[in-house]
Amino acid sequence: MKASLDAFLACEAGYDEANTVLFGVPYDSTTSFRPGARFGPKAIRSESFGLESYSPYQDRDLVDYKIFDGGDLELPFGDPVPVLAQIEETIGEILDDGKLPAMLGGEHLITLGAVRAVKKRYPDLVILHFDAHADLRAEYLGSQLTHAGVMRQCYGLGAEIFQFGIRSGDREEFVWGRDHVTTRMFDFEGLQKLVKKLAGRKVYVSLDLDVLDPSVFPGTGTPEPGGVSFQALLDACLALRGLDVVGFDVVELAPMLDASGVSTAVAGKVVRELLLAFCK
Amino acid sequence: MKASLDAFLACEAGYDEANTVLFGVPYDSTTSFRPGARFGPKAIRSESFGLESYSPYQDRDLVDYKIFDGGDLELPFGDPVPVLAQIEETIGEILDDGKLPAMLGGEHLITLGAVRAVKKRYPDLVILHFDAHADLRAEYLGSQLTHAGVMRQCYGLGAEIFQFGIRSGDREEFVWGRDHVTTRMFDFEGLQKLVKKLAGRKVYVSLDLDVLDPSVFPGTGTPEPGGVSFQALLDACLALRGLDVVGFDVVELAPMLDASGVSTAVAGKVVRELLLAFCK
Amino acid sequence: MKASLDAFLACEAGYDEANTVLFGVPYDSTTSFRPGARFGPKAIRSESFGLESYSPYQDRDLVDYKIFDGGDLELPFGDPVPVLAQIEETIGEILDDGKLPAMLGGEHLITLGAVRAVKKRYPDLVILHFDAHADLRAEYLGSQLTHAGVMRQCYGLGAEIFQFGIRSGDREEFVWGRDHVTTRMFDFEGLQKLVKKLAGRKVYVSLDLDVLDPSVFPGTGTPEPGGVSFQALLDACLALRGLDVVGFDVVELAPMLDASGVSTAVAGKVVRELLLAFCK
Amino acid sequence: MKASLDAFLACEAGYDEANTVLFGVPYDSTTSFRPGARFGPKAIRSESFGLESYSPYQDRDLVDYKIFDGGDLELPFGDPVPVLAQIEETIGEILDDGKLPAMLGGEHLITLGAVRAVKKRYPDLVILHFDAHADLRAEYLGSQLTHAGVMRQCYGLGAEIFQFGIRSGDREEFVWGRDHVTTRMFDFEGLQKLVKKLAGRKVYVSLDLDVLDPSVFPGTGTPEPGGVSFQALLDACLALRGLDVVGFDVVELAPMLDASGVSTAVAGKVVRELLLAFCK
Amino acid sequence: MKASLDAFLACEAGYDEANTVLFGVPYDSTTSFRPGARFGPKAIRSESFGLESYSPYQDRDLVDYKIFDGGDLELPFGDPVPVLAQIEETIGEILDDGKLPAMLGGEHLITLGAVRAVKKRYPDLVILHFDAHADLRAEYLGSQLTHAGVMRQCYGLGAEIFQFGIRSGDREEFVWGRDHVTTRMFDFEGLQKLVKKLAGRKVYVSLDLDVLDPSVFPGTGTPEPGGVSFQALLDACLALRGLDVVGFDVVELAPMLDASGVSTAVAGKVVRELLLAFCK
Amino acid sequence: MKASLDAFLACEAGYDEANTVLFGVPYDSTTSFRPGARFGPKAIRSESFGLESYSPYQDRDLVDYKIFDGGDLELPFGDPVPVLAQIEETIGEILDDGKLPAMLGGEHLITLGAVRAVKKRYPDLVILHFDAHADLRAEYLGSQLTHAGVMRQCYGLGAEIFQFGIRSGDREEFVWGRDHVTTRMFDFEGLQKLVKKLAGRKVYVSLDLDVLDPSVFPGTGTPEPGGVSFQALLDACLALRGLDVVGFDVVELAPMLDASGVSTAVAGKVVRELLLAFCK
Repeated sequence: MKASLDAFLACEAGYDEANTVLFGVPYDSTTSFRPGARFGPKAIRSESFGLESYSPYQDRDLVDYKIFDGGDLELPFGDPVPVLAQIEETIGEILDDGKLPAMLGGEHLITLGAVRAVKKRYPDLVILHFDAHADLRAEYLGSQLTHAGVMRQCYGLGAEIFQFGIRSGDREEFVWGRDHVTTRMFDFEGLQKLVKKLAGRKVYVSLDLDVLDPSVFPGTGTPEPGGVSFQALLDACLALRGLDVVGFDVVELAPMLDASGVSTAVAGKVVRELLLAFCK
Repeated sequence: MKASLDAFLACEAGYDEANTVLFGVPYDSTTSFRPGARFGPKAIRSESFGLESYSPYQDRDLVDYKIFDGGDLELPFGDPVPVLAQIEETIGEILDDGKLPAMLGGEHLITLGAVRAVKKRYPDLVILHFDAHADLRAEYLGSQLTHAGVMRQCYGLGAEIFQFGIRSGDREEFVWGRDHVTTRMFDFEGLQKLVKKLAGRKVYVSLDLDVLDPSVFPGTGTPEPGGVSFQALLDACLALRGLDVVGFDVVELAPMLDASGVSTAVAGKVVRELLLAFCK
Repeated sequence: MKASLDAFLACEAGYDEANTVLFGVPYDSTTSFRPGARFGPKAIRSESFGLESYSPYQDRDLVDYKIFDGGDLELPFGDPVPVLAQIEETIGEILDDGKLPAMLGGEHLITLGAVRAVKKRYPDLVILHFDAHADLRAEYLGSQLTHAGVMRQCYGLGAEIFQFGIRSGDREEFVWGRDHVTTRMFDFEGLQKLVKKLAGRKVYVSLDLDVLDPSVFPGTGTPEPGGVSFQALLDACLALRGLDVVGFDVVELAPMLDASGVSTAVAGKVVRELLLAFCK
Repeated sequence: MKASLDAFLACEAGYDEANTVLFGVPYDSTTSFRPGARFGPKAIRSESFGLESYSPYQDRDLVDYKIFDGGDLELPFGDPVPVLAQIEETIGEILDDGKLPAMLGGEHLITLGAVRAVKKRYPDLVILHFDAHADLRAEYLGSQLTHAGVMRQCYGLGAEIFQFGIRSGDREEFVWGRDHVTTRMFDFEGLQKLVKKLAGRKVYVSLDLDVLDPSVFPGTGTPEPGGVSFQALLDACLALRGLDVVGFDVVELAPMLDASGVSTAVAGKVVRELLLAFCK
Repeated sequence: MKASLDAFLACEAGYDEANTVLFGVPYDSTTSFRPGARFGPKAIRSESFGLESYSPYQDRDLVDYKIFDGGDLELPFGDPVPVLAQIEETIGEILDDGKLPAMLGGEHLITLGAVRAVKKRYPDLVILHFDAHADLRAEYLGSQLTHAGVMRQCYGLGAEIFQFGIRSGDREEFVWGRDHVTTRMFDFEGLQKLVKKLAGRKVYVSLDLDVLDPSVFPGTGTPEPGGVSFQALLDACLALRGLDVVGFDVVELAPMLDASGVSTAVAGKVVRELLLAFCK
Repeated sequence: MKASLDAFLACEAGYDEANTVLFGVPYDSTTSFRPGARFGPKAIRSESFGLESYSPYQDRDLVDYKIFDGGDLELPFGDPVPVLAQIEETIGEILDDGKLPAMLGGEHLITLGAVRAVKKRYPDLVILHFDAHADLRAEYLGSQLTHAGVMRQCYGLGAEIFQFGIRSGDREEFVWGRDHVTTRMFDFEGLQKLVKKLAGRKVYVSLDLDVLDPSVFPGTGTPEPGGVSFQALLDACLALRGLDVVGFDVVELAPMLDASGVSTAVAGKVVRELLLAFCK
């Protein structure tokens, strides 16, 4: 893995010195509605020029942290099996080197590759899942490995799952979900309390940006009206600072779907805040 | 092999078995600013693929209802007189067949055709009107039959009119309106109370989607900043469940004006919620 | 009242009476650059409203032919293996029913499914391939089943291949191509002569619309400057009327990449001319 | 301080001193496919800032002519009857004041208003019509007054019509056309000869910009692939210099359909060349 | 026939009779991220056709005021020195003629030219600054005269500065700012109180529209998520009515970045409200 | 200067080993009409993923050459003086290191910086200039240093200038040009002959991509209809192989103005062909 010159905002450490490793997964082949999330990581990186490295919310500055931006993985298209294997291997290496993996999607299915690697090393894993969609389908159009069923698959690996912001799914997902995962519908109520309860647990955070209202974040494959505001998501990011996070991802930006560039700016700012929240 | 040409989200009943009849009116010839609402119904139907038929807000599913999607009317362009006549006839047939008409616009003038048909059958009709614009002009650029005066025309038919969310008009409209209709400016305060008061009345609901703030719904001919949130409109839709609705319309989506597709997704979700709220 | 949901331009025959069967394959999961070809068939159908059914080039009218528009196949996303199987089965049925299959893509890999079905029934098959790209890669990013290698796969089935308009590929494709297929670079010179030579042979025509210059057809995943004009492609279509065509496809329209709608209009007009050229 | 609000490129004469009067007709209510031509004149005027007033093709400069830009007419929307009356009156005044009317559309139906005024004053009128579409329908969706039948209506006024570039219409239009108008299909062959033949006749020139290939001019309601190049249209404009032109129009730019702005630049340059060709 | 070329919404007074002078500054050469603010004033003027002149918020109507719209300044591009000089001169003339200057940007640097003119005439000047960005850089990429340092420059002229809504800057700006200006981060809390406190002072109001959340106002060069709602900005505008405003500007609309036109509508409505708030 | 990971297509040599040095100049502050050329080099680099490194036109492959991509210069915005100085210094270093400089714009004014450096080292310099615009203004809106006068400035340095494809300018430019430079209007006739005549001379090639017709290349600030085809430009590029080129630039791609991405693809392909034509 070698360094990118057009790195994300001030993430210019070398791999060896870095405590955190950011990388992109330009994959969207199981997207059922509108593809384009493959261009997410590249856009976040490229448009980060318009952001400041300093956060007035946290009074922290990315220039003070050691973060390596590894660029995007080179992936085959189509079949997700080899893609997930490659993600699992990449995340595994980062974890084994004692660094924090930060993954930019791409579509949500990629979380499965990451969780496979993390779960193997932290068997007691908790997943904190922010999303508009439940992602709990047993199968979708004949396939189990799709963005629409990624949390069902993660559950199958034995992870404990807490969901926030969910506002869409078919009836069966909600029925199954009631018995197997903990879901807060529509908003983030109860998050602060949960963060306290999770003290001492290893946590993987998976953030599907479509949890935001489409007015804030139109650039995504399956926009779902009725989501949270940017302020609500920002508050949630800050609330997570108490957790022992062992990996996280930010997925489902499809930059071409929002020609104004605002969705990319939103994604970049969220990535900045999460890096500042979780980096050591 | 069978044809899989698209109806709106799970609206796949035949006409005879249906309790509700959805149809589109691709007309926008009197639009004064930016046309394109003619493509609204087609876009709502086509993009409904990205939505679920199940509503977690109402815990109801469109697959459990008998709804016929009749596609779009074939209309002449230009002169509104024959267009309004064709709408009146179509709505009349649907009502006479004991079904609920659900009309997708198109521009707001089409409501006049619907109200003519409904008023003839329910002389004591109440119109519930959600809109950014008062639509009360006596005439506009020399014509009476325009989107900007549709509620003035409906008043002329003898309907009682309640407006919500109004935030734009010329001074004369507001002056006239004070004496002839009941207007709640800017938001939906008082709606719950009104719904109770209207018990036993026949109600036609006309929803101009530009009542939403343009951040939520930019894809409309005359965006008017300062509108309501999606959540506010959703709450309003749910509040209407107590009414005896004899017809409704959702108008003024101009999908090409919002390339992100979000406005179309918003419109589709609103149509889903209204169908679930009003269908028997 | 009857449903008026949309078929392609005047293709309103029932399946049984039809001589030709048009259908769409909304698949683009192996697209390596910019996805979106999945929306091609739907856009061609929907925007055909802007075209006439009558061709002044051929003095023929689609209203005089029996063509069934079967809509789009329902497909899983991601792994191409089941997708190709479903295409093969669909084309096989159409052929066994004595009808001409006309397939709208989607990405170019789908041609492989069609050729499998056709080759089984016509072992002496010739493929006429119009494209900017050679599509002759042995593998691409670790996979054999991709749009970039579809003609290499077709060659592997034993088909004889003639290519026109090719202007892009890696060096190895051109080297391999010289020994295994017949390639006319850059333009369509020699086509008329070839058509005469192919008298008596069964021919499958595969038209990747990116053979057109991107000025004419920008709405495609991998635009390659230096292509042919619309007039040149139209002349080619008319030249093919002498062939015994047993199936054809038109692929790689990605309508969202050309917001002007012109690419979709071009695709629709080409489909009209090919249907008029090949229908009985 | 003086107001610098915009006229078209150097057209800054007052009405009284002007020999030529340019004005816009922002009407598109009978457009059957994609509206937006109403914004054509405004865009041509506003984007003319990017053009030079000097033409190297004619070695003439707009600064040397007296042209008044009257802005856009204020029109009702919908019903075309009063719109056509207003155009007829405006053109009539300009003619009666001894000036040359130059009208910017808007949709093609507006030509009818102009021809009514011109024909009344020049009974022996010839119309030179450049277009992709024959515009010869007796009626369209139940109406006679539509863009699709404008030349049929002009014929009804007794004008002699010569068409160039036509490549679309229904079969009946071509059949009727053969007996009533002189049509050169697809290109401009024979134009030079015709110009000579028309010596001594009064000529009205109507230029529907969609006669251009959509690669050159995508910003129009009904793009029709297979049109002429910019160079061909420019040559045609220059060829017309020999005629005794008593009025002309340039119609069917819908600027929002081409976000690149190129279509507007094309329209502006054509208007510049025609003004330089016809102004005294 | 009279020319109807466009002024902003009902601002049709002549210069001499006017109490208020609106003009545009189409300059954006120091924009560091995405240019296009040069087109802001033209778009606000042109799209004001979609707004009403009457404000239901203030129950005032622009038709009742004498406002002259002077169009856009003609400026060189590149070097800001002569541009600032021209602005200073223009504002100076307006002030010396006893009128209120209202300037439409353009990028934020132009405020410096205005403040130079105003400060010279009102030495005790207060600047009220609404913005997402602190704009307090000592220098940026080697230059002092940039949008990113405009308030630092204004401070250098001796003005007292109050900032609201600031949520972005580098660490040094915030450090410096703490000692030299009064900054309310993120929102407008305390504005009402400040307005009272400023009684008797001359105030210049500078509104960078990117203080709005990008969901409301995506059409700007450097969108910064987490901003205020339209309602909040509207309330702020109304709150300012108590002030003795001697000039104001509205800057940083880049209309091409928001193809939906909503950002332009927002800007136009804000300009309307400010004119109604400050005009005499 | 350090290397870029997102380098242009296979340009992955280190600086020291490279024979050719590619770099970008993201400057567009003197653009008079539509800015955005600053994003040109980044887009060319980023979208080169969609191109092949092998050219079938030249049967050469970029992988066989040693080219260093130095990324984009970091520049101040606004005043062109320091920008031109930085370009001159950069080009000077590259020349002094015995390498070929290849500069990507940015707007056309940047050529002046390059020519200053080259002319100092090769006093007998010839400039070959491809453009739609004469770029010969003595001054423009009060400034001499603008894109509209860059060749006038180069002439002032003593270079001999040959122009091709010119089709726009004010009358004075053409008058002055006749006496001072050699201009082929509209197309490239005579280029082959000139190449022969220039044997033994040092040549700088400046290619303003707007020499292409806007149908081929809409993504540029000042599109000028009536330009050359892609094939014509490609032929010109190949014809230049006989020259002793000591530097070249490709300028005026404004990628955001062509959302289809085609203009960027065109620019990238032209850069590939020029690199293959000129690299040793």
